Amino acid sequence: MSLRMSIWLAIFIHIYSVLASDSDPVQDFCIPRSEFSSLFVSCKNSSLVTVEDFVYSGIKSPGEFSKTGFSSIPVSVSVFPGLNTLSMSFVRADFKPGSINVPHYHPRATETAFVLQGKIYSGFVDSSNRVFAKVIEQGEVMVFPKGLIHFQMNIGDSQATILGSFNSQNPGLVKIPSAVFGSDIEEEVLIKAFGLNNKELAKLKKKFLPTS
Amino acid sequence: MSLRMSIWLAIFIHIYSVLASDSDPVQDFCIPRSEFSSLFVSCKNSSLVTVEDFVYSGIKSPGEFSKTGFSSIPVSVSVFPGLNTLSMSFVRADFKPGSINVPHYHPRATETAFVLQGKIYSGFVDSSNRVFAKVIEQGEVMVFPKGLIHFQMNIGDSQATILGSFNSQNPGLVKIPSAVFGSDIEEEVLIKAFGLNNKELAKLKKKFLPTS
Amino acid sequence: MSLRMSIWLAIFIHIYSVLASDSDPVQDFCIPRSEFSSLFVSCKNSSLVTVEDFVYSGIKSPGEFSKTGFSSIPVSVSVFPGLNTLSMSFVRADFKPGSINVPHYHPRATETAFVLQGKIYSGFVDSSNRVFAKVIEQGEVMVFPKGLIHFQMNIGDSQATILGSFNSQNPGLVKIPSAVFGSDIEEEVLIKAFGLNNKELAKLKKKFLPTS
Amino acid sequence: MSLRMSIWLAIFIHIYSVLASDSDPVQDFCIPRSEFSSLFVSCKNSSLVTVEDFVYSGIKSPGEFSKTGFSSIPVSVSVFPGLNTLSMSFVRADFKPGSINVPHYHPRATETAFVLQGKIYSGFVDSSNRVFAKVIEQGEVMVFPKGLIHFQMNIGDSQATILGSFNSQNPGLVKIPSAVFGSDIEEEVLIKAFGLNNKELAKLKKKFLPTS
Amino acid sequence: MSLRMSIWLAIFIHIYSVLASDSDPVQDFCIPRSEFSSLFVSCKNSSLVTVEDFVYSGIKSPGEFSKTGFSSIPVSVSVFPGLNTLSMSFVRADFKPGSINVPHYHPRATETAFVLQGKIYSGFVDSSNRVFAKVIEQGEVMVFPKGLIHFQMNIGDSQATILGSFNSQNPGLVKIPSAVFGSDIEEEVLIKAFGLNNKELAKLKKKFLPTS
Amino acid sequence: MSLRMSIWLAIFIHIYSVLASDSDPVQDFCIPRSEFSSLFVSCKNSSLVTVEDFVYSGIKSPGEFSKTGFSSIPVSVSVFPGLNTLSMSFVRADFKPGSINVPHYHPRATETAFVLQGKIYSGFVDSSNRVFAKVIEQGEVMVFPKGLIHFQMNIGDSQATILGSFNSQNPGLVKIPSAVFGSDIEEEVLIKAFGLNNKELAKLKKKFLPTS
Repeated sequence: MSLRMSIWLAIFIHIYSVLASDSDPVQDFCIPRSEFSSLFVSCKNSSLVTVEDFVYSGIKSPGEFSKTGFSSIPVSVSVFPGLNTLSMSFVRADFKPGSINVPHYHPRATETAFVLQGKIYSGFVDSSNRVFAKVIEQGEVMVFPKGLIHFQMNIGDSQATILGSFNSQNPGLVKIPSAVFGSDIEEEVLIKAFGLNNKELAKLKKKFLPTS
Repeated sequence: MSLRMSIWLAIFIHIYSVLASDSDPVQDFCIPRSEFSSLFVSCKNSSLVTVEDFVYSGIKSPGEFSKTGFSSIPVSVSVFPGLNTLSMSFVRADFKPGSINVPHYHPRATETAFVLQGKIYSGFVDSSNRVFAKVIEQGEVMVFPKGLIHFQMNIGDSQATILGSFNSQNPGLVKIPSAVFGSDIEEEVLIKAFGLNNKELAKLKKKFLPTS
Repeated sequence: MSLRMSIWLAIFIHIYSVLASDSDPVQDFCIPRSEFSSLFVSCKNSSLVTVEDFVYSGIKSPGEFSKTGFSSIPVSVSVFPGLNTLSMSFVRADFKPGSINVPHYHPRATETAFVLQGKIYSGFVDSSNRVFAKVIEQGEVMVFPKGLIHFQMNIGDSQATILGSFNSQNPGLVKIPSAVFGSDIEEEVLIKAFGLNNKELAKLKKKFLPTS
Repeated sequence: MSLRMSIWLAIFIHIYSVLASDSDPVQDFCIPRSEFSSLFVSCKNSSLVTVEDFVYSGIKSPGEFSKTGFSSIPVSVSVFPGLNTLSMSFVRADFKPGSINVPHYHPRATETAFVLQGKIYSGFVDSSNRVFAKVIEQGEVMVFPKGLIHFQMNIGDSQATILGSFNSQNPGLVKIPSAVFGSDIEEEVLIKAFGLNNKELAKLKKKFLPTS
Repeated sequence: MSLRMSIWLAIFIHIYSVLASDSDPVQDFCIPRSEFSSLFVSCKNSSLVTVEDFVYSGIKSPGEFSKTGFSSIPVSVSVFPGLNTLSMSFVRADFKPGSINVPHYHPRATETAFVLQGKIYSGFVDSSNRVFAKVIEQGEVMVFPKGLIHFQMNIGDSQATILGSFNSQNPGLVKIPSAVFGSDIEEEVLIKAFGLNNKELAKLKKKFLPTS
Repeated sequence: MSLRMSIWLAIFIHIYSVLASDSDPVQDFCIPRSEFSSLFVSCKNSSLVTVEDFVYSGIKSPGEFSKTGFSSIPVSVSVFPGLNTLSMSFVRADFKPGSINVPHYHPRATETAFVLQGKIYSGFVDSSNRVFAKVIEQGEVMVFPKGLIHFQMNIGDSQATILGSFNSQNPGLVKIPSAVFGSDIEEEVLIKAFGLNNKELAKLKKKFLPTS
């Protein structure tokens, strides 16, 4: 296999793994180079950059809803390369009546959540296990401090939508139910941690383990 | 004058001047202490913090429109103390048809601008004076890299609204026309910088100097 | 009430709430001023600083064990003021045979965990729910990346001990079981998030709600 | 075309676009690898680094003067690679009597300006449009806070020179007159922003648009 | 020589020179890609990452002792790639009775030193030349603020061991005696700096210059 | 003693100890409040700030020369409060012919050194003890990477002067000879570290210990 082939293979295997950091940029912007160089951390020549690199049009409407009536479209640097080095990203979340965004946190960002429509019960848990929650409505904004668990539930009669903004180009997302019960954490650890018996744990895990 | 009086006087004179920095927080959150201690950089005791500290309700509707049909409500840490240490803030901007948000920049933040309604011609100028601009519509997002001049104009027939998010608790705002022609920069500097004559400069300045 | 009284009252109410940040220090060190000024963010005069300010002696032996056989002594800036502005802290954790450190994360730090004694099954879950876990023994070190859920279980026959180090003066600690089931998150959210019924949830919560 | 050719072509097209950031270095220094790898963000092997990499000799005398009598030689990481990862750079500016450095700002750095010779009227505008300006002389230093518009004018009878230092390896430079009137910002935006008519704008633009 | 050969040659010459920075990560973790791409700053595809990447087993026992009875094993990102982007590293140091860790400093990190066994006289010098030193024993922790000179001496009768933790993935190490007298600093500088005569300097240098 | 007295006493004892950090500012500038509040970390009300706060005039001429013919005037935030939060500072150093700036380092900053006049042998030692040194002349600039030991010697026939700039508001200064031999490091440590006998050490120390 030729070197050229090897490189292209590497590119396809290693889809977009950047090593940047959320600190001050050292240039106006840095659109990661596509194709060849997504493999390397370098910027497109600015003459190849266009205004389209700085506009994202993929959250005009909701994403696909889950069976429980929730939909989210996270827009980090991996889908909107124009965010690269700029330490920001965002997410659109839509809720059918009664549906929830399960308790989750973003390991690398604070979030400001703006209600585009609807009435949403929204809250977070601080590190002393105190809950700060209330119903917020269209036009209101709630801030979820960096790394703290938060959740939302549409308590209105119609669809609700939230626009969340983050101060990281890749905030990360850890959904508590699936991270805990849908991952392969040793069962003995979970049994002891949550005070469950084998059967109870099995029931919980069945809901979250990926189906094959 | 008693010490007590001195302190209170100091408080009233020195309205809210915090010395924090947009780096990683070292606690879950830090609601600046009101009254007495807005003077000092310290956090409210967490038992006094409520969910209301993390919710902002002041941008449900547009602010007051200027004569030219533009309105903006910047929400930084000074009006929404819950943002303190969290390195985020936001702004609501409303545009009557044809009105503009004049060329301006934020010295301390990148901005992601989400179109809540309307059609907005929106763009920025990079440091080699290249313009990246296009019309964006409801649901689209444009990113303005940190510190670069940007501008917007409602080119639709109805009111337009934008929600801007920033990765600083106090992004700052420098409006080019008033910073240059509405401040007291020595006239000779402006005359030479812009190639104006005295009369042309006087005409320009008249529009931006604060009236007394 | 006199001003003096007011100030002292404020001091006792607002025990140690610093507003610093984990960035580069701007002085060699900054031991927060005790008593009077724990209220304000300022440093002890260096002539009052002694070597004792930089030494911590409280983790020579295990802390008090919980009923399940686990003990931890977190040493952040609030108990070891010498760490102030230095972006580091640490923890001692002791495990009776079979006991666990429940799944938890630190919102503001990476952790390097050094095994002082014993055999410990240790792991973390990344944000795609993949588990990285194995048994580590005396003298081995495992790194838990910033903000990711991790856990430990003593699988040896004798007591095990870990020294964890953090790159924040106040890393924070969110224990998943108590943050989720021991806080006051609205029950409907938990029922929907974990697919539980009312009775199952009540059973889970009973284990974690603080008793009065 | 061979791979080798492709790579070299890429190198010539993509002249020096680094993706670093102004945060703490993680090595003593990192001289970007020349030739081949200016394309990639990596450091020269330290055995190839010499003292010449850390010395810059290009500002011993003024640069070429503009027609208005101003000259500046900005020395960022792109011309002095030894600055890479070290978050510093500098500039030499020379002024014929009466000449100016037009109102401009650096989006990514604070500047300390030291007067090497001459008498210079020097100032900046804060974000509430207040001007801080005065005449500074040989041996005096003025600081221009990060991202704020500043300007200088030689008010002495002989040539004046300034050495500016920055806390970024690539501070950026936005000159207000050319960024606003010499870029292609939509004319309607400028007409409305500055209250100009078509003819006035045309006259202003003529001075700043690049000639072809 | 073929391009392929050139590239491999480059790889062997340029052993592991990363250009990252100790700021917030933008992904869960980033194990630098081995072989081919240690040359470039990019992360292993996460499917190739295993738990072994996050565990270090090389400090279970002391390293090789010097003639003076001191041994240290620094574990930075270059030997434990799992630390990459995580801003932490550590060191094991062992002391025969009476042996010392010479005055040194880490240019890029604060250190917390935990005594694993023994009695160690341990201290640092602040930038006003004040020494903070005392004997610390098993289980005690001393913090050495970023960039300050510190030292240790085993004053007990048996071997002593310290585990040091750093808040940088590559803290750096400058040993004063060898940096000053074992490097090639111009002799006249040293003679004047330390008030030595030629003979005294020669004697000092003989101990530290690398033997060939 | 009255509270008022207590506060003033505290102020005089605790001269200017700020707890800020070299990260992004969150306001245009922050001139620390004088008198009363130098005790607390807060900013002067901007209406009290004048252009004088941003100009420093104290390095127009050399400072007092030492017996060896060296003089330096470090200008950090403590003498030029306008630098506060702006992460920059500077120093003027003057050298009589043959005099030196002893090997030293700045724990918290990189330095760019511009030769104002004269011929200066200038260099630094990296963390593998390699020296990078050469003679630099008027108008040349040398960069000393963060935390590395560096030194200078006037090798010309006339006085030499350097302007050093730093990327920290308080870079710190550790002079190796006095930090090592002029502090109270336990003699046994120094004897072992430098391979000296008691007499040799005593001779060295005599030169650097503060005289009383």
